[in-house]
Amino acid sequence: MTIKLYCFGESGNAYKAALALELSGLDWTAVYVDFFGGETRQPAFREINIMGEVPVLVDRDVTLTQSGVMQMYITEKTGKFGGTTPEEAREVMRWMFWDNHKLSSPAGMTRFLMNFLPEDKRPEGVIPFTQARLKAAYTTLDTHLAGRDWIVGDAITNADFSCCGYLYYPEPFGFDRKDWPNIDRWLDNISAAPGWKHPYDLMPGSPADRA
Amino acid sequence: MTIKLYCFGESGNAYKAALALELSGLDWTAVYVDFFGGETRQPAFREINIMGEVPVLVDRDVTLTQSGVMQMYITEKTGKFGGTTPEEAREVMRWMFWDNHKLSSPAGMTRFLMNFLPEDKRPEGVIPFTQARLKAAYTTLDTHLAGRDWIVGDAITNADFSCCGYLYYPEPFGFDRKDWPNIDRWLDNISAAPGWKHPYDLMPGSPADRA
Repeated sequence: MTIKLYCFGESGNAYKAALALELSGLDWTAVYVDFFGGETRQPAFREINIMGEVPVLVDRDVTLTQSGVMQMYITEKTGKFGGTTPEEAREVMRWMFWDNHKLSSPAGMTRFLMNFLPEDKRPEGVIPFTQARLKAAYTTLDTHLAGRDWIVGDAITNADFSCCGYLYYPEPFGFDRKDWPNIDRWLDNISAAPGWKHPYDLMPGSPADRA
Repeated sequence: MTIKLYCFGESGNAYKAALALELSGLDWTAVYVDFFGGETRQPAFREINIMGEVPVLVDRDVTLTQSGVMQMYITEKTGKFGGTTPEEAREVMRWMFWDNHKLSSPAGMTRFLMNFLPEDKRPEGVIPFTQARLKAAYTTLDTHLAGRDWIVGDAITNADFSCCGYLYYPEPFGFDRKDWPNIDRWLDNISAAPGWKHPYDLMPGSPADRA
């Protein structure tokens, strides 16, 4: 039975799960969630996920939320992307947690504030503050990637899917990959993986639909 | 051999690992990190953890960073706190990721800005913005805890350790447990666990030392 991923194109967190599904070879399909129309704030959606967040993954009687948990589930089912030793497995989880805390969380928020919120509703002072914190996160990732093709070990893992979640989008939020040569090279490695797709090609919905 | 946890009292992220270690019965000791003296920004510390963050756990030849990874490691070693079924295990991970993204990350930052940064250095507009986001997170957690003693299943798990990380501290950051009856009751459940200690009793260093 086909795995369903409730998602929308603009969500980098959904992209982390969608990309892992796509490259894993599992049979899956995207179900569009109308985030900008308020669907995740409705009681029907909160019934599925009290956190009110996309993505949600449904595989028969298993319902998962949080992209990190979905990535672990895909690894459980396929043996892929979780690292090849216990040490690598821990290192993969380390970067997934770091990403959720320090990279994707502020990146997603800053991109939202700068691109999807009317200019007069943007909270004063928040964007430069968050961008300064993000710069520290890019520095950490770029430094780690020096001399490496992948975040952990010799192959693509959930750590790569997690950290790249918001980094392919065209909407400006203060990240320019050309400023970070190791991140830039690593993003090329990921997008060269057979079957890779850009978030707007992998999931339904994009700003173009609302233009 | 005794597990070492590099930590300091004010770190709620370190508390998540310290509390799991303490209640697990494993032999561990705290090693003080002078965060406020700049130790985590020094090259020697960055050698240990490129992320520049506390906590760091060292168990013989295993060095771990990210409290979530430490909690998983403690579960691996002891069989405790990880949930009793695959479903519970995923649900524990779900709340750990959610916490890292939506609760502890903004709570720790807001507490830092309001209590540990000179007033003239506090960035304009950031505190009320983050407090509004935190209110949504408290609402999610409080709603989930209605009719439950623990976040997952019938016993204390890593989900509880993770989500409570910043919630016992006395420094004000906009969280008053009396406003959230289910969170309040749940925090009482955790602190009634045999061996429980307050962060300033469990780890070295507190604002009192610098007063």
